[in-house]
Amino acid sequence: MQIKSQKQQKSCKTKGLTKSDDEFITMVKQKFFEYKSEADLEFKDLTDDVADFVKISGIKDGMVLVYSTHTTVAICVNEKEKGIMADFKDVLKKIVPKENYYRHNDLAIRTENLVCQSGASDCLNGHSHCTQLLMRNSETVPVMNGKMELGTWQRIFAIELDCCRPRKLIFQIIGE
Amino acid sequence: MQIKSQKQQKSCKTKGLTKSDDEFITMVKQKFFEYKSEADLEFKDLTDDVADFVKISGIKDGMVLVYSTHTTVAICVNEKEKGIMADFKDVLKKIVPKENYYRHNDLAIRTENLVCQSGASDCLNGHSHCTQLLMRNSETVPVMNGKMELGTWQRIFAIELDCCRPRKLIFQIIGE
Amino acid sequence: MQIKSQKQQKSCKTKGLTKSDDEFITMVKQKFFEYKSEADLEFKDLTDDVADFVKISGIKDGMVLVYSTHTTVAICVNEKEKGIMADFKDVLKKIVPKENYYRHNDLAIRTENLVCQSGASDCLNGHSHCTQLLMRNSETVPVMNGKMELGTWQRIFAIELDCCRPRKLIFQIIGE
Repeated sequence: MQIKSQKQQKSCKTKGLTKSDDEFITMVKQKFFEYKSEADLEFKDLTDDVADFVKISGIKDGMVLVYSTHTTVAICVNEKEKGIMADFKDVLKKIVPKENYYRHNDLAIRTENLVCQSGASDCLNGHSHCTQLLMRNSETVPVMNGKMELGTWQRIFAIELDCCRPRKLIFQIIGE
Repeated sequence: MQIKSQKQQKSCKTKGLTKSDDEFITMVKQKFFEYKSEADLEFKDLTDDVADFVKISGIKDGMVLVYSTHTTVAICVNEKEKGIMADFKDVLKKIVPKENYYRHNDLAIRTENLVCQSGASDCLNGHSHCTQLLMRNSETVPVMNGKMELGTWQRIFAIELDCCRPRKLIFQIIGE
Repeated sequence: MQIKSQKQQKSCKTKGLTKSDDEFITMVKQKFFEYKSEADLEFKDLTDDVADFVKISGIKDGMVLVYSTHTTVAICVNEKEKGIMADFKDVLKKIVPKENYYRHNDLAIRTENLVCQSGASDCLNGHSHCTQLLMRNSETVPVMNGKMELGTWQRIFAIELDCCRPRKLIFQIIGE
């Protein structure tokens, strides 16, 4: 994890802000979180990793942003229960079916962004992009007293909307 | 572009921290907001409560996060007009019908999270979870000059996706 | 409400902050961004404008919020490819068709918010409101080392859900 504010915090401590004062200084800390997704519509549970990041950051009160650097991954907060994950698949099958015609997949007419990162089949994911537009690229969770204020059933997920490749997320916290 | 902090920053560097400089210090403040939802797809208008929170916080410029601690409530910013609320019900009825089969509701196969908080019927809300996944768990609103910069028709809502129970939200502001 | 920073703020004021310390001071900066939308479901690419704002802000690490002050515009992060934009139009045509009956458009029964900002036809946008409720009013992007950490294909868009009028967004950055 990058602990960007460490130096500033120390210099502050050195120059007259005594031990107890370093707590109040607002800080920004961030880390990249990488994993390999394993299935289409996989709900990758990030909760423990984000919680560890918050703990190590030393920030007591603030906001933690969980951000996807992709265009076919969604970040969500919901319950971890296998039924919901399968039910959501059914909903998407109905409203954004993979089998429909998508111009994004039609290499006879498409002219933009034809260099794919992980093989030609990854370009043919019009349904994934349309689904992401109906979801969200990040979620923000409040941190109080050094911990995320998640409700009883809340878990943080990265939902794979295409499939099976290395994914890179960013956890970023700002607070004091 | 407004560069609000420029002056404060300079005066800080030059003068040490004098009386007027305490304005620039970034702060985090938060409160829990509790209410009881009264209907399925109720649009609970939070705007005045969030505005009061922002005012009392004393923060002039920053971001206010409105966060749900649940998995079947969505936070949205939209117009307050009864027609829209009823129209949205029709849209959801079509894309995530309550009457469909949901594995989450099938107690013959479900094995996880079977302790419900407010009665067995609250477990049978597969449509609510799927709808929340298509919506969002929080919204962030910019605060400028001590007030939220909401547009003319913008109101902040907690939308009840299941029904009728105590709900706990978090308002959190970070700024200076 | 917890007012966490009050005590620390005072101790900071007392002790002074020297020149090198201004680096760590968290700042909030903001600007309004205005444009005229030109088509229904136009994807207005904001990426370069937000990047310029981040650069001029001088903030190295933090979060930038891109916020719509409207109720029929959505903010999204996705790929810029003409096919996707047309594909998404097809998805919305199916799930929130403009031609459906909307109470919001039924002036025989509607009683609220009947003053429209830019002509009567702009009131008749029930489908736009319902679509926005399935999308989002803002997105937040992490800033590291003075730049947004967008992935290879990520661009920031304001999606016009109604049509063709002046639109006002807010870019706001908080960080250090």
